[in-house]
Amino acid sequence: MNTRFYNARILTMDGGMDIMEEGELCVCGNTISYIGKEENKDKTDWDRQIDVKGNLLMPGFKDAHTHSGMTFLRSMADDLPLDRWLNEQIFPREAKLSSQDIKMCTKLAILEYLSSGITAVFDMYLTPESIDEACIESGMRCVQVGGMNNFSQSLDEQEERYLKFNSGNPLTSYMLGYHAEYTCSKELLEGLSKLSHKYNAPVYAHNSETESEVKGCIERHGMTPTQFADSLGLFDHGGGGYHCVYLSDDDIRIFKERGLYIVLNPGSNTKLASGIADIRKYMDAGLKLAIGTDGPASNNCLDMFREMFLVTGLSKLKEKDASVVDADEVLAMAVKGGAQAMGLKDCDCLKEGKKADIIMIDLDTPNMQPLNNISKNIVYSGSKMNVKMTMIDGNIRYEDGIYDIGQDPREIYKYVNDLAERLR
Amino acid sequence: MNTRFYNARILTMDGGMDIMEEGELCVCGNTISYIGKEENKDKTDWDRQIDVKGNLLMPGFKDAHTHSGMTFLRSMADDLPLDRWLNEQIFPREAKLSSQDIKMCTKLAILEYLSSGITAVFDMYLTPESIDEACIESGMRCVQVGGMNNFSQSLDEQEERYLKFNSGNPLTSYMLGYHAEYTCSKELLEGLSKLSHKYNAPVYAHNSETESEVKGCIERHGMTPTQFADSLGLFDHGGGGYHCVYLSDDDIRIFKERGLYIVLNPGSNTKLASGIADIRKYMDAGLKLAIGTDGPASNNCLDMFREMFLVTGLSKLKEKDASVVDADEVLAMAVKGGAQAMGLKDCDCLKEGKKADIIMIDLDTPNMQPLNNISKNIVYSGSKMNVKMTMIDGNIRYEDGIYDIGQDPREIYKYVNDLAERLR
Repeated sequence: MNTRFYNARILTMDGGMDIMEEGELCVCGNTISYIGKEENKDKTDWDRQIDVKGNLLMPGFKDAHTHSGMTFLRSMADDLPLDRWLNEQIFPREAKLSSQDIKMCTKLAILEYLSSGITAVFDMYLTPESIDEACIESGMRCVQVGGMNNFSQSLDEQEERYLKFNSGNPLTSYMLGYHAEYTCSKELLEGLSKLSHKYNAPVYAHNSETESEVKGCIERHGMTPTQFADSLGLFDHGGGGYHCVYLSDDDIRIFKERGLYIVLNPGSNTKLASGIADIRKYMDAGLKLAIGTDGPASNNCLDMFREMFLVTGLSKLKEKDASVVDADEVLAMAVKGGAQAMGLKDCDCLKEGKKADIIMIDLDTPNMQPLNNISKNIVYSGSKMNVKMTMIDGNIRYEDGIYDIGQDPREIYKYVNDLAERLR
Repeated sequence: MNTRFYNARILTMDGGMDIMEEGELCVCGNTISYIGKEENKDKTDWDRQIDVKGNLLMPGFKDAHTHSGMTFLRSMADDLPLDRWLNEQIFPREAKLSSQDIKMCTKLAILEYLSSGITAVFDMYLTPESIDEACIESGMRCVQVGGMNNFSQSLDEQEERYLKFNSGNPLTSYMLGYHAEYTCSKELLEGLSKLSHKYNAPVYAHNSETESEVKGCIERHGMTPTQFADSLGLFDHGGGGYHCVYLSDDDIRIFKERGLYIVLNPGSNTKLASGIADIRKYMDAGLKLAIGTDGPASNNCLDMFREMFLVTGLSKLKEKDASVVDADEVLAMAVKGGAQAMGLKDCDCLKEGKKADIIMIDLDTPNMQPLNNISKNIVYSGSKMNVKMTMIDGNIRYEDGIYDIGQDPREIYKYVNDLAERLR
């Protein structure tokens, strides 16, 4: 597909937050071939020429931590304490899932990502093969990360997947990872460290999501989850942590020295009452930040607009200072920070030669008016209703409310409703 | 207009959160004439018969505290400390507004309310006549409240408006009020108390939004804002407070004894770093609660979905308990609580004889699937994209992204953009 967008505002994010007015953006195959002011109408045999009508093109959001397959659990078990939620509601039902169930639940999540302008996800869940299939069939860009723990996903399986998914369809890739310190034995993590050194590969995991997790780790190992992982060499080739609500000063030092990414999940941390990460402190320390929705059982929606508002809003509340964590910095986390954390070097901004992972934001709506500051409008008043189009790898997968992922959304809804009914 | 909705899920909120499946709802003029299972196809000469296709009809949200006219300020002055935001950015620009400016800014807000399923607003701002005009012209239900302070809106003007707006178009009404203790002299408030007693009328005002407001009031009067207002007899006929982030135990006692409403504004309190109201405590004390967006300069969006998530989410964070402030209770605040606070006795639920203030929630979207629990889906994963239709007083004002408020939205956008440019 060759697509020409014209009459567009363009927020390239290649540098600052400047917006080009009345620009053109051309896509050849899966790559951005032109951004600028020239008219390219007759230069190629375009499959589609789209009048953007002054709306905004920008790079897609990157959901840097999620568990897509958990969609079946949405609103099945809310308003419960965390331990009862996990042990009574989540774990027993997850044990009954088939790989086909997870594939279809992942497809439901993909529909929602598209409606929220999310063009890539950093996904950790069961039966990685079915996640890979769901993403390739749907045209979703996905970086999977190992969710290894004492009960599932062995080291051998992880190595096999690392090799397989990183040499298969370029739309999907794989990073080494483990679920969390509290679900993994030391021996298992030592094995993962060896794998990381064998492939010079970064390692990701849930880290310091709750106070009790940190306390438990200190009791078990005399160290915080970050210190413990670092002591095992797990961060020698980089990587990062999901959540990171409770990092100590020494943890922050390790994150800085190892160049690790923090993936913030404010919606999930809010709904599960886990706490507010000290984002201002992380920013002051120069740490690298990205944003994720976490899974739909704990959030419950896969909505980058909500997450962006919460990243800055909760920081303002925590610091009692309305000036901290500027909206433009949050927007950068949701796009560039995520792409960098996920190793998607060609998906971080709009630029010639970069992958065509592009969204169109509808500015012709009351919540985007007036246009005093478009990037702040996106963070502070944007909503899914403003996502007019989502293009991944040069293919338009969502446009004006219509999905194009190779399967009728209602088939997917029916499957997941039936599944939820079966597992209720 | 007589409208028949069929094949609908219906959340009447007349009682609990039970949902009728495959129901019909009929509207004659501005009133709900039927809800049930019978087929009314041939019973009246319908102007429209709408196949709801299994989507959800429910009563519209009530935005119980806002300043609609501030839309021109959206994203003009974010990420600033509260005092600089008010004194450098807001007040100097407000001083330059004409009544026509406020009318058009209010219309911009009305468009956004409609897109968020808000069917009535409790509005406090300058030039109330132009707000009244904007709402009547647009078909928006509006309860205005006096924003009297030492600088604008005298007692005489307030009495005149109270009489005029409460005997004019039934779509709009008026409540007595004052901006806040810190902007009003004792004499002015004593005068308002007399007015309240003359008409047996409740009184509303900003109350205990910030710690410094409460501290200042104690310094000035030896009492909290609630105690001070009560000591002047301002609550003898009921009323309530906007924000109420910092209420003392004695304030809570006064709210309970006087039957006052608390209008929560979590989005604004978050963005301005004001704090988190102790909602669980208020609920335990049996206080009456409603929800507002506050104005678009401080929020910055007029989105009841964001507010509902924040009411429960921030409470969970504050209490460190994921089970507090159940989503269903939040949904009741956003609908019934608001209607009651605003004196809209006939707009609190869907029932024969009640006003036809109805919204249609699109369930055929990924963020509403699966349908494990529809009311929780609305609070935890709903978004403006789910508002398929907004009907006020029997008239459809918003449907599938199209607005019908008697003026082209683009004319409104242009006016407010030009205004913002002029005041920059």
